[in-house]
Amino acid sequence: MNREQLVKQVKDKKNYLCVGLDTDITKIPKHLQSHPNAVFEFNKAIIDATKDVCVSYKINTAFYEAMGLKGWEALEQTVHYIPPTHFTIADAKRGDIGNTSAQYAKTFFEVYNFDAVTVAPYMGEDSIRPFLEYEDKWTIVLGLTSNKGSNDFEQLMVLSGAGEQQFLYEKVMQKVAAWGTPDNLMFVVGATKPEQLAEIRKAFPEHFFLVPGVGAQGGSLAEVSKAGLNKDGGILVNASRAIIYASDAETFATDGRIVASEYGQQMKLSLEGIF
Amino acid sequence: MNREQLVKQVKDKKNYLCVGLDTDITKIPKHLQSHPNAVFEFNKAIIDATKDVCVSYKINTAFYEAMGLKGWEALEQTVHYIPPTHFTIADAKRGDIGNTSAQYAKTFFEVYNFDAVTVAPYMGEDSIRPFLEYEDKWTIVLGLTSNKGSNDFEQLMVLSGAGEQQFLYEKVMQKVAAWGTPDNLMFVVGATKPEQLAEIRKAFPEHFFLVPGVGAQGGSLAEVSKAGLNKDGGILVNASRAIIYASDAETFATDGRIVASEYGQQMKLSLEGIF
Repeated sequence: MNREQLVKQVKDKKNYLCVGLDTDITKIPKHLQSHPNAVFEFNKAIIDATKDVCVSYKINTAFYEAMGLKGWEALEQTVHYIPPTHFTIADAKRGDIGNTSAQYAKTFFEVYNFDAVTVAPYMGEDSIRPFLEYEDKWTIVLGLTSNKGSNDFEQLMVLSGAGEQQFLYEKVMQKVAAWGTPDNLMFVVGATKPEQLAEIRKAFPEHFFLVPGVGAQGGSLAEVSKAGLNKDGGILVNASRAIIYASDAETFATDGRIVASEYGQQMKLSLEGIF
Repeated sequence: MNREQLVKQVKDKKNYLCVGLDTDITKIPKHLQSHPNAVFEFNKAIIDATKDVCVSYKINTAFYEAMGLKGWEALEQTVHYIPPTHFTIADAKRGDIGNTSAQYAKTFFEVYNFDAVTVAPYMGEDSIRPFLEYEDKWTIVLGLTSNKGSNDFEQLMVLSGAGEQQFLYEKVMQKVAAWGTPDNLMFVVGATKPEQLAEIRKAFPEHFFLVPGVGAQGGSLAEVSKAGLNKDGGILVNASRAIIYASDAETFATDGRIVASEYGQQMKLSLEGIF
């Protein structure tokens, strides 16, 4: 899905919600746990119930990998089940030397045909370039993440020529932005830091940001929307646990839909006056 | 495998070679490519031919992931085939928020029972802790990597209180070292930078380092040995392509063994006077 198509989805639905399918077999409702294909059945129900109130799904690969082969089968079934109207993200946080990153890019863009994959920047340019080389695919590089550990390294001050200082995450985003374009590169910017999100939006007016941390992690949707929206929408706000584990009743999917719809209502309000 | 057991392997064999199984289906010898389980057959032959001239195997997960389900099957078969005497590393470069990193730790330490997994540090403490919580398992955190891109961020100067400056990779290693111990934590330090490896050894006299970059990437085994060895050996030097693709003849495994043995001879020399 290219930028034009993604923006059209956001504008048509007045929605920028990404539903995170961090599906943990031990946390899904009891009535599904004995199902031979429980994770896919769970995801299918969530997708059916939420697809008209979101524009994107994010699959957190860790939860599938932890199930071994059955997990990868469920991942594959899930990504095929997501309608082509929805932007698909492999939240995989990969990154390695060039020839290895090329294999990861092949995995997520060719083998599983995701629209986007998240990438960790530590190893630098040759670890990121192989992802950016795919046309109409998206590389989503970690900028400032939503977790407490973002203080440890991302928010260190680095020296940046002529005695100037900036945060490591700013330096990372600045350098990485030069390797891609707003048509094939997004950044992860956590919802738990709306003031910093506003600063980052000023520095990067065009790029889409994937914004995790609303819901279970405590970020405010209204605040991140105010800080992050641009003329194209420009943010995909992810919520995972708050939606998919809204309840553990047999009505879990419609209960999740209610939470997703509430986010959707807030998004519609936040978009008023933008388009 | 705990530290005592690992050090015993290194001392008994006078060897610290790690053979990297970066097995690319398109690069294995023609006579194997049509085999229904070509990657595992290839790995099996390499393991049979090299197990008495190395102490460790490193599986680069990217190459297996890029083959879809068949790749994960081959990975599982391979890790089960490696003798229990050999230290097994999942070179996966994972790392995410705490509850997600816990899933990755489960994947590599429980589902596939590797001794060690490589972890990317960008997201900080809560992204690394879940790996360190496993007893008798090892977390191998990226310090200074062997690739060109290590200049982009790892070698930035960061401010470190009272106006002092240090490289980002130094800061990363210093902080991470406080979260683990030399019994459960190693660092990746690239072979392409032996001078820096010597400095890093001074700062971290006890830790094991996983040293990639010898062979195809150009690092010198004699130089990294001189710079990196400590009283326990303390380094695992990885070579992948130089060994596994030593030739594409039917004799590829014994050809690989010859290269591995040459490394082993150099290692024996470098260990003279240490133990």
